[in-house]
Amino acid sequence: MANPSILILAGDGIGPEVMTEVKKVINWFGAKRDVAFDVSEDLVGGAAYDVHGVPLSDATMAKAQEVDAVLLGAVGGPKYDVLDFSVKPERGLLRLRKEMDLYSNLRPAQCFDALADFSSLKKDVVAGLDIMIVRELTSGIYFGEPRGIITENNERVGINTQRYTESEIERVARSAFELARRRGNKVCSMEKANVMESGILWREVVQRVHDEDYADVELSHMYADAGAMQLCRWPKQFDVIVTDNLFGDLLSDAAAMLTGSLGMLPSASLGAPMANGRPKAMYEPVHGSAPDIAGQGKANPIACILSFSMALRYSFDLGAEADRLEAAVEKVLADGVRTADLLGPEGGSPVSTAEMGDAIIAAL
Amino acid sequence: MANPSILILAGDGIGPEVMTEVKKVINWFGAKRDVAFDVSEDLVGGAAYDVHGVPLSDATMAKAQEVDAVLLGAVGGPKYDVLDFSVKPERGLLRLRKEMDLYSNLRPAQCFDALADFSSLKKDVVAGLDIMIVRELTSGIYFGEPRGIITENNERVGINTQRYTESEIERVARSAFELARRRGNKVCSMEKANVMESGILWREVVQRVHDEDYADVELSHMYADAGAMQLCRWPKQFDVIVTDNLFGDLLSDAAAMLTGSLGMLPSASLGAPMANGRPKAMYEPVHGSAPDIAGQGKANPIACILSFSMALRYSFDLGAEADRLEAAVEKVLADGVRTADLLGPEGGSPVSTAEMGDAIIAAL
Ligand SMILES: CC(C)[C@H](C(=O)O)[C@@H](O)C(=O)O
Ligand SMILES: CC(C)[C@H](C(=O)O)[C@@H](O)C(=O)O
Repeated sequence: MANPSILILAGDGIGPEVMTEVKKVINWFGAKRDVAFDVSEDLVGGAAYDVHGVPLSDATMAKAQEVDAVLLGAVGGPKYDVLDFSVKPERGLLRLRKEMDLYSNLRPAQCFDALADFSSLKKDVVAGLDIMIVRELTSGIYFGEPRGIITENNERVGINTQRYTESEIERVARSAFELARRRGNKVCSMEKANVMESGILWREVVQRVHDEDYADVELSHMYADAGAMQLCRWPKQFDVIVTDNLFGDLLSDAAAMLTGSLGMLPSASLGAPMANGRPKAMYEPVHGSAPDIAGQGKANPIACILSFSMALRYSFDLGAEADRLEAAVEKVLADGVRTADLLGPEGGSPVSTAEMGDAIIAAL
Repeated sequence: MANPSILILAGDGIGPEVMTEVKKVINWFGAKRDVAFDVSEDLVGGAAYDVHGVPLSDATMAKAQEVDAVLLGAVGGPKYDVLDFSVKPERGLLRLRKEMDLYSNLRPAQCFDALADFSSLKKDVVAGLDIMIVRELTSGIYFGEPRGIITENNERVGINTQRYTESEIERVARSAFELARRRGNKVCSMEKANVMESGILWREVVQRVHDEDYADVELSHMYADAGAMQLCRWPKQFDVIVTDNLFGDLLSDAAAMLTGSLGMLPSASLGAPMANGRPKAMYEPVHGSAPDIAGQGKANPIACILSFSMALRYSFDLGAEADRLEAAVEKVLADGVRTADLLGPEGGSPVSTAEMGDAIIAAL
């Protein structure tokens, strides 16, 4: 049988640097654990624009559809800010999400013990925090039509449309309930049903799916503004949060920041099962392309390495190997190995991106 | 000349209790400072629904249009959760905002020294924090058409529309720049211009208004997800934040919670000047109706009292009287007077809603 296939799209900014470390990790698993992958690489974002004039070429899109998992670094940078909306680096990312139909975006907000002091929140509020935000990723206001800037009564009007069908809500709700069963068995669904009809439908469908098939999971509903408040007040009250594309964007970023572990957090974007039973899948760090430190060997590769760990778990059913990789990361942190972003005000001497990768390999 | 007029809409839950204390304060200003108001009262929210079958009657709406300022308590409660969307308590509030055209919602996120320990954030992150969120309040996805739940291809679809015209963006941007000039002279505008065309127009118009008329104010732009992160990481980087209706809802709630002073925070919703030069205006606490403690004399009236203080400042040009009232609140807090919500884990004995009101009167 052929090895499972991975397409690496390193992208822009620190993307290529952190991905270099992931490749070391992938090679280690091939050499030492007999877990080998067929790895190919291609361009996305500004890097693709520079070569093809679009942030994702059709050929790359076709490859992404064929592989077992995509690993993405990061997209965007000031150089591309002037580009037209239609070819901005982000459009490459959004095209991948939409055309691969990756409707379920898993964003763990986890506080690493070694880093609890790093949060702007008090230590007791975040220590041991481990929540999972499930964000709908292929619909809502990111993709709804009509959209655009039109002229009406002699002035311009900016328009976007939030649209959710029952089946779109149902499938992401199912994925949240399934996850909750393997965790704390609790789901909190967030919307603005007090203001938006799409929120009313969201709440109704999540409740119905629960009552029909997941009555064993504890379900609550919260308005998204109250959710933002509660995340800041006492995040440990949550286990799994399920929410729409736009709310998920803000809430997961806030949650990630709260943990103090932003440079550490991975994500998985999952779609329907392919013919081989594996879900369509893309894995990427939560952090961005960080143009200010790109090319300097300062970036923390851990979020990207842990994204590969999520791939081991969710695409390749290699939970034990994922555990092994995560344990190696924790060991390295416990040993005090720190990239620059992980040094507190007391300072210390940071290791480089490559040194962090090597330390993780050594710990493996 | 007739006294300026105030319409009190105490609403539901703890609304009437906290408003009782505000009335004491209003009376004090009439008796002791020769600052008298014609005060009338009416119903909103569930309280209005119980009597009229709608959360805001046409007669009340007409009164609100005529007075110099509306003071609102809070709306909503579990009793009304089963009501149809069209008559939910919130609709009363949204009708007031829309028909009075209160486009500029000022939400200070301020950390009171006496309460800095209360925040879930570290003290140095929030102590002395004083930012102002200016939220667009009459447009965007809260009001855009088409909206509703329709059936398409045999399934239901929930739809809401984000719509912003240039002039809607321009007027709220102006109000943010004006405010910034009287504060730290810095505005950060937040949207998702990387994903939404309405965000592109937002950014463009804010920048144009700045360049044309407010070039002396420092302007920056941030994506709303990054904004949520930065609010959690280092809120003191901000002075004035201007954003749309929906982002403003989440971001201002998160910011309010961060301060640890949620029961303390007022808000002002301002529209265009009336014939007498005063802006159309409504003032209300940021907290909700808190049904769990309603009727028990436990609620903290300070947010509602400080909302009246904003009325003194923004509607009646009585800045010195507003300062006086705010100083009285600070004195009471410094003296250790605490309603139940202001007691930390160490405990202490709380005062009642009425006792807090009386203490503030005494301090005046
Ligand atoms: C880069 C951008 C288009 C993207 C989004 O808004 O979804 C990012 O913020 C994210 O959360 O992955
Ligand atoms: C009660 C609700 C309609 C309202 C809103 O969403 O605007 C509230 O959350 C607020 O922020 O004032």
